[in-house]
Amino acid sequence: MTKKEKAFIRSSRVAHLATADKKGQPLVIPICFAFDGRELYSAVDEKPKKGSPLSLKRVRNIRVNPPVCIVIDRYDEDWRKLGYLLIMGKARVMLRGETHKKAVTLLRKKYSQYREMAIHERPIIRITPGHFKSWGSL
Amino acid sequence: MTKKEKAFIRSSRVAHLATADKKGQPLVIPICFAFDGRELYSAVDEKPKKGSPLSLKRVRNIRVNPPVCIVIDRYDEDWRKLGYLLIMGKARVMLRGETHKKAVTLLRKKYSQYREMAIHERPIIRITPGHFKSWGSL
Repeated sequence: MTKKEKAFIRSSRVAHLATADKKGQPLVIPICFAFDGRELYSAVDEKPKKGSPLSLKRVRNIRVNPPVCIVIDRYDEDWRKLGYLLIMGKARVMLRGETHKKAVTLLRKKYSQYREMAIHERPIIRITPGHFKSWGSL
Repeated sequence: MTKKEKAFIRSSRVAHLATADKKGQPLVIPICFAFDGRELYSAVDEKPKKGSPLSLKRVRNIRVNPPVCIVIDRYDEDWRKLGYLLIMGKARVMLRGETHKKAVTLLRKKYSQYREMAIHERPIIRITPGHFKSWGSL
């Protein structure tokens, strides 16, 4: 990953995460995320109406099928300024531990909104990038 | 789909499309799209370095595995204003015909940028929604 790509990841407030279930049905949702220079972390902060956060579709998908794709992009009506960074990687769901703690700290540093939220008690999705592809103007 | 959801789709300039290959590897990319009140259309406007536009990964994914997911969302630093609309559906790749023609017209009406581009000579992805889910503030 180039310096420019790393800076683009760090400066972005939102990304889109795609997962798929065993049957190949994809799911994409917008996520907030933190980046430690190597891996990306995203909090599972919703409360499902029924059951635990582990029952959320994206969490279930990752547990049966770890390959994911993340895109971070910029839209502009001047299409010469369009750009995106695609990250193919593997995800796993962390419930606790040192890396979970580090992720919570990074997320709260980047997003003040998380400082009042109990994300430390909730699962964190950890994404280990495999390969990258960037297009257009980052 | 509610009137509010339809208005939200129409007013959005960009969406994110997730496809998956046969092995369950997901791919997500930002797309421009037009909506005719029932279906969504997206032009395949990139020129791959090698081969035809049909060799693009998203096109190959759709041809072997039609289920897709689209999300249209709004990000705001005031998280009370976050919202998204999730569309699960089936996609197919159109090369020509009446619906292809209609899609080109809709895309050029919505995006002046397409008026100078040869999207009429390129594939169009047509997405037929199956079900919807909206969350937050649209």
